[in-house]
Amino acid sequence: MANYARIAETGKPRVVVVGGGFGGLELVKSLEKADVQVILIDKQNFLTFQPLLYQVATSGVDADSIVHPFRKILHNQENFYFRLAEVQSVDTQRQFVETSIGLIKYDFLVIATGATTNYFGNDQMEQNAISMKNISDATTLRNTILCNFENALQLDDEVQLNSLMDYVIVGGGPTGVELAGALCELRKYVFPKDYRELNFKEMDIHLIQSGDQLLKGMSGEASLKALEYLQDLGVKVWLNRRVKTYDGYTVTMDSGETLITRTLIWAAGVKAAPVDGIRKESLLKGGRLQVDQYNRVAGYENVFAIGDVAAMVTETNPQGHPMLAQPAMQQGELLGENIANIIAGKTLHPFEYKDRGAMATVGRNRAVADLKLFNKEIKTQGFLAWLIWMFIHLISIIGFRNKLAVITNWVWNYFTFNSDNRLILGNKQENIPIAETITHKTLI
Amino acid sequence: MANYARIAETGKPRVVVVGGGFGGLELVKSLEKADVQVILIDKQNFLTFQPLLYQVATSGVDADSIVHPFRKILHNQENFYFRLAEVQSVDTQRQFVETSIGLIKYDFLVIATGATTNYFGNDQMEQNAISMKNISDATTLRNTILCNFENALQLDDEVQLNSLMDYVIVGGGPTGVELAGALCELRKYVFPKDYRELNFKEMDIHLIQSGDQLLKGMSGEASLKALEYLQDLGVKVWLNRRVKTYDGYTVTMDSGETLITRTLIWAAGVKAAPVDGIRKESLLKGGRLQVDQYNRVAGYENVFAIGDVAAMVTETNPQGHPMLAQPAMQQGELLGENIANIIAGKTLHPFEYKDRGAMATVGRNRAVADLKLFNKEIKTQGFLAWLIWMFIHLISIIGFRNKLAVITNWVWNYFTFNSDNRLILGNKQENIPIAETITHKTLI
Repeated sequence: MANYARIAETGKPRVVVVGGGFGGLELVKSLEKADVQVILIDKQNFLTFQPLLYQVATSGVDADSIVHPFRKILHNQENFYFRLAEVQSVDTQRQFVETSIGLIKYDFLVIATGATTNYFGNDQMEQNAISMKNISDATTLRNTILCNFENALQLDDEVQLNSLMDYVIVGGGPTGVELAGALCELRKYVFPKDYRELNFKEMDIHLIQSGDQLLKGMSGEASLKALEYLQDLGVKVWLNRRVKTYDGYTVTMDSGETLITRTLIWAAGVKAAPVDGIRKESLLKGGRLQVDQYNRVAGYENVFAIGDVAAMVTETNPQGHPMLAQPAMQQGELLGENIANIIAGKTLHPFEYKDRGAMATVGRNRAVADLKLFNKEIKTQGFLAWLIWMFIHLISIIGFRNKLAVITNWVWNYFTFNSDNRLILGNKQENIPIAETITHKTLI
Repeated sequence: MANYARIAETGKPRVVVVGGGFGGLELVKSLEKADVQVILIDKQNFLTFQPLLYQVATSGVDADSIVHPFRKILHNQENFYFRLAEVQSVDTQRQFVETSIGLIKYDFLVIATGATTNYFGNDQMEQNAISMKNISDATTLRNTILCNFENALQLDDEVQLNSLMDYVIVGGGPTGVELAGALCELRKYVFPKDYRELNFKEMDIHLIQSGDQLLKGMSGEASLKALEYLQDLGVKVWLNRRVKTYDGYTVTMDSGETLITRTLIWAAGVKAAPVDGIRKESLLKGGRLQVDQYNRVAGYENVFAIGDVAAMVTETNPQGHPMLAQPAMQQGELLGENIANIIAGKTLHPFEYKDRGAMATVGRNRAVADLKLFNKEIKTQGFLAWLIWMFIHLISIIGFRNKLAVITNWVWNYFTFNSDNRLILGNKQENIPIAETITHKTLI
């Protein structure tokens, strides 16, 4: 029989938040003045600023500067308790969360477990691709890219060489587009200095998108401009293609076309990551939990869900809100207020999403932005959009020191056309040994 | 049969340097203008600034800001080639180095493999202790410390709790002293805010030193002052004690006294890490290679050794020079010039060690320094020594950006009495599961 985790009972209603992403953190902060005990459970002790993962992967910023420990962010919030633990399931009957450190009782439960990479059931892809959801993915990709070039120095065979020097990115959303752009910058300015012995004209960067436009969900102008920028930088963009198979070496598309690469980055989709123990009737397609306009999970009184894992189906959002930081943060903030309202017996406020727009950057000096300000839609592309992108991301990073670290890196990289963080430190993708693929090659 | 690694023949004499520490790097730089091909082999792609490892371990600075990629440091040096590889042995007959990427021929071989942790044959210690020689050790210690407190939150049993909250550092050299001081600062200013549920009066920091003074090799004044500072901060210093056994839980000293801790940091000594294939007659006690005053390994014409792995036995240094950065860097620089002299048929210059002194810092505002300037010996302790310590370390860190990152961290930590890098990211020490030690405890 499992034991209870050791957390002091404060005698106040206990709000247990599972998952410390953008939504969970906003919720915790929003409860700062509430007469409750707030317990945040996460398997990491820090928040990850996901929008900059691609910059960690491409040696643009330090891994440490885009993560921030929860205990540090919230050390002045007296009603806050953190527990480093994995959640196994929830028991909504007996009102506790089952975790790796024992059972944790709750009065209010908030599921903010976010999303995970969606391989759409392709196990072979899951095994061979690198995803871009967390800090470990990002450093794995960074280490893999650098090791590829170190290994490429030892090869004569042209096909083998290209398998190490070429990159295939699947998914034309912001992550795929930004990563492709950053890799082009490295190919142009940084790698030729580091690896004078290699010919970087041989380095191909492919971006595969299932639909007929990049940055789905943004405006047509933004999509077209992003495509133009990428092609200008030399990215080979494949539209209307799906990847069928990838064995760690050969990428086969549904069109029958093939590409050779040892490094495929899978940025083609995410799916909700709900916890076990929630009734099946509340689970929608894609694993999202059906919530009402107060983020209450259908069928429960005191179980809520926010962010990527929640689907608030409305007329304007028949699939739920987009799986982005903004709705998660706005839901987290409001839910904090509403939980305080429930306790105080006050009226709850329904959620209304304020869409502030979307943006993506494509290499130096270029970005695309669809902004929504004062009910006006402003579409801009190019240098101004790039400045706005930097400004918005910079103010969103938590902690003065992290802001300073990131801006220092950016300014430094901008003026020196260089980046200092080319470290092979930590994990890397296990490649098929080169000897094996030489045989493999004959099969193509 | 092993193949040759693929490195272009430039037709120039080839200098192969095994190991990119302080000595190896200085040597490579010193050969910048020489008419040679310089190949540096290292199993990491970056230089580690070891003097600040203890600050990484105690969340004071980012891991990334004390390492610097070789290719970045040297990307303007045209005769420089880097290879990421492990060296298995050298064949001095046929003049090549056997590595994980194949054989590498040399005309001049420089062994700069440095030192490794010396457990003095105590396998149990090697298995259970954390050492402090590389960046992975430092992040392992950081993660272990933070996980200890997270785990401590789940314990009622007082002995178990103390086993997680107490720390034992073995070795009273600079690493041990600096680490003990930094842990005291964390105990005083940082941890009580992060873990309000724990009682940090229970956190004991022990420092065990085999001799009767700390900082052996420094002046009596420095040793005494360091002891005073540490005791003032609340470190329990055990002089004239050796650790006999440590099973991951109970530390037994030769005096019979015992301490309980799950985290023992072994900073009690290093030993040279020579490569295989050098004739036995040239190996001195402790694994160092006997070299003449030109750093030539005894019995060879074109094989050299510098730094920790070399022992240049002189009247003033009967054991060879101290295993520190300074002699390594000075030897590296001179050997570069001498290799150019050999090629040009010029006279070689014998090595003369310019000892500039030693220093160690003990927490906030306090350090001890024995400096040698203009043939004068200056001993200073306290705030001035602390400023000098910071200045010297800051100017020694490679790269403008790393300097900026470190100084930002220091200034920030100084004025906020805080440190931002409390991340559990990467490896941690595998502890004995708590359930096991509860039985274990009854054996004590």
